[in-house]
Amino acid sequence: MSMLFNTSGAGAVAADPNMPPVPRIDLPRLLGRIAALAQVGAIDGGGCCRLALSDADGEGRRLVEGWMRELGLAVSVDAIGNVVGVRAGSEAGPPVMTGSHIDTVRTGGRYDGNLGVLAGLEVIASLNDAGIVTRRPLAVAFFTNEEGARFSPDMMGSLVYVGGMPLDEALDTVGIDGTSVRENLTRIGFDGTHAVGAPDVHAFVELHVEQGPVLEHEGVTIGAVTGVQGIHWTEFTVEGVSNHAGTTPMRMRHDAGHAAYAIAAYARDVARELGGAQLATVGHVTVSPNLVNVIPNRAVFTVDLRNTDGDALAEAVRRVFAKADAVAEAEGVRITRRSLADFAPVQFDERIVERVEALARERGHSVRRMPSGAGHDAQMLARVCPAGMIFVPSVKGLSHNVAEFTHDADIDAGANLLLALMTELAA
Amino acid sequence: MSMLFNTSGAGAVAADPNMPPVPRIDLPRLLGRIAALAQVGAIDGGGCCRLALSDADGEGRRLVEGWMRELGLAVSVDAIGNVVGVRAGSEAGPPVMTGSHIDTVRTGGRYDGNLGVLAGLEVIASLNDAGIVTRRPLAVAFFTNEEGARFSPDMMGSLVYVGGMPLDEALDTVGIDGTSVRENLTRIGFDGTHAVGAPDVHAFVELHVEQGPVLEHEGVTIGAVTGVQGIHWTEFTVEGVSNHAGTTPMRMRHDAGHAAYAIAAYARDVARELGGAQLATVGHVTVSPNLVNVIPNRAVFTVDLRNTDGDALAEAVRRVFAKADAVAEAEGVRITRRSLADFAPVQFDERIVERVEALARERGHSVRRMPSGAGHDAQMLARVCPAGMIFVPSVKGLSHNVAEFTHDADIDAGANLLLALMTELAA
Repeated sequence: MSMLFNTSGAGAVAADPNMPPVPRIDLPRLLGRIAALAQVGAIDGGGCCRLALSDADGEGRRLVEGWMRELGLAVSVDAIGNVVGVRAGSEAGPPVMTGSHIDTVRTGGRYDGNLGVLAGLEVIASLNDAGIVTRRPLAVAFFTNEEGARFSPDMMGSLVYVGGMPLDEALDTVGIDGTSVRENLTRIGFDGTHAVGAPDVHAFVELHVEQGPVLEHEGVTIGAVTGVQGIHWTEFTVEGVSNHAGTTPMRMRHDAGHAAYAIAAYARDVARELGGAQLATVGHVTVSPNLVNVIPNRAVFTVDLRNTDGDALAEAVRRVFAKADAVAEAEGVRITRRSLADFAPVQFDERIVERVEALARERGHSVRRMPSGAGHDAQMLARVCPAGMIFVPSVKGLSHNVAEFTHDADIDAGANLLLALMTELAA
Repeated sequence: MSMLFNTSGAGAVAADPNMPPVPRIDLPRLLGRIAALAQVGAIDGGGCCRLALSDADGEGRRLVEGWMRELGLAVSVDAIGNVVGVRAGSEAGPPVMTGSHIDTVRTGGRYDGNLGVLAGLEVIASLNDAGIVTRRPLAVAFFTNEEGARFSPDMMGSLVYVGGMPLDEALDTVGIDGTSVRENLTRIGFDGTHAVGAPDVHAFVELHVEQGPVLEHEGVTIGAVTGVQGIHWTEFTVEGVSNHAGTTPMRMRHDAGHAAYAIAAYARDVARELGGAQLATVGHVTVSPNLVNVIPNRAVFTVDLRNTDGDALAEAVRRVFAKADAVAEAEGVRITRRSLADFAPVQFDERIVERVEALARERGHSVRRMPSGAGHDAQMLARVCPAGMIFVPSVKGLSHNVAEFTHDADIDAGANLLLALMTELAA
């Protein structure tokens, strides 16, 4: 790998008299593009519904691809529908890439993913306006089906892009409406020809809204993202025996509901016991027959465990599974498990994390290191190049919600930081 | 109140040389009536759907009323649709009554309620065949809407019969299909004219299937029912804040789901701590939005607490409510409660319980005292006269289920016991 930053001391970059001054982004222009893209698939409350590879996603893709071409980027579409626009550098070689996704969940906001793509275009536009040509090429990408709301797994496009999933397996994936990725890519005209699997990228940086409450809660403007926590989702199915709640002695019960509640309540204990960054959530529970006076014979529930520390996460999983086994034994019920997701933690490149912190401070912004709680395309790119992320605050931590909002001043701060960071990386 | 049993030592009754020998019931005739009634509203699997005051209930009522008249009973229908058939005694006065209900839940069995009514008719038929006239009159009743599956509350007919609920309030009750008790009584032709509210009954005894597993599990034929346990149902609604399961630190959560699981799991602890006859069931739980990776903002669940000891039941309620308050405080969620049912325990007449035990032993049957876990018409009659119940085993404890079953030999034992007990009470 070539040197990430073309300086002996990265902190000195901005002061190098031989480099042109870094321009500022044009906030109204960026906000205008965010608003224009939000009109595509707009839903009540200011949000968007552009499920991956839907007609609305196709329309959004054509809009953004058009902007790429207007900005002079060389656009390519690959075999999984990822779109990459490249701006030539003064030298040939692998580009410094930014990007994210423009697909949304069914009741999505206008910032999640879109901000990262459109801020990338704003970086290009600002450099164009200032007449600056970087040494390395720059690239802006949007990746197919990051949300996973229509096709599983999520982050599919970036996963295929880095060679983490066979192309045909991804293309054959059937979504919630019974149609495949392949036929939808063809239908909306994004079944591209560029090869996937072994990209040559100098570095990847992604600007994203936090999607959580930490930055707003602490009054901090910039999150220097240290990595993405590991995610482990399990669906538990409990099979017991239904009986009359008034006539069945406690000792003779095989209560599927009680087993579910006991394990679900214990998930919180695991988070407390392990502490640190351990998260535990039971978001989904159904019991049958779900009547006040009938002992449930069946319960299905999920446990979502996350941690930035892979060993701690594995320990949390072990404890929850052991609890489930013990409860099954004690209650005389059968408990089966199904894995819904299992991603190891990802560490971003320490040099990039440091530069995000330093560049934020140079600009007078408050900044803190933090892990990402959600998955992002950057974690896939981290498999093939130095990668990092910049977070800006989400008001009330809301995301995957039409009420998702990030203040204009924070968008301005984040986009300017992205511009400075990409300029450094491409110097 | 007159003396319940017309003997100085009740145990001596069967041996009194001045009394005619107690005949035996005709089991095939009783089973034939059970099968014939089960044909009305029959559903797959051998069960019945005769929701209260439905057309099927009307048809079943006409069938049973016809049998009453064939047996020479003087039939009256009261203003809430209860049907009572009276067989004159050698003296006038309040009757010794038996009975139950013939309405069913939507997926009911053929024994619940029906057995008590039809065994009552079989008692009359057997005495008719033997040419025996008791001193006191005998009566067989079936009460309106015992199940409560279409109209609330359950045990409505017997409750109104004893003056526990104003007639107009019952008649104005609107069911799950939006129609009232009054219009359905009129439609099926059971809007009778007999007054309700102050019945004159010497004693009431009811034969019923256990609806629980205890008798079968212990290999016992007869349950001498000591009373009906108190029932306390509460619906809890938890309001928290929805957020991303991956980006919201544990300390910043207001997780409605976790609050529900913690309280639901604690209900079992209360049953264990109080021991004895304390039961606790959480049969109903829903969480919103019910997604694996979203912290629930709302949960609704029920807690069903029962105990034969009213003070212990009140303590169980107090502990569950206190736990809910503590969880609401700790989690920062709002929890509201709604009472769905609150019936104090009922004690049956000790003299009747003793005679059930003694008569069962005299006939060579195993017998045990036990409370009833479910509500029954007899608990309403206990407000106005000495009352008691006889239980026979339910295979696997199944009830409110098309697979409900009681062995013929147990029906024979129970019905003969009912005959002997009524004969004694009417002597």
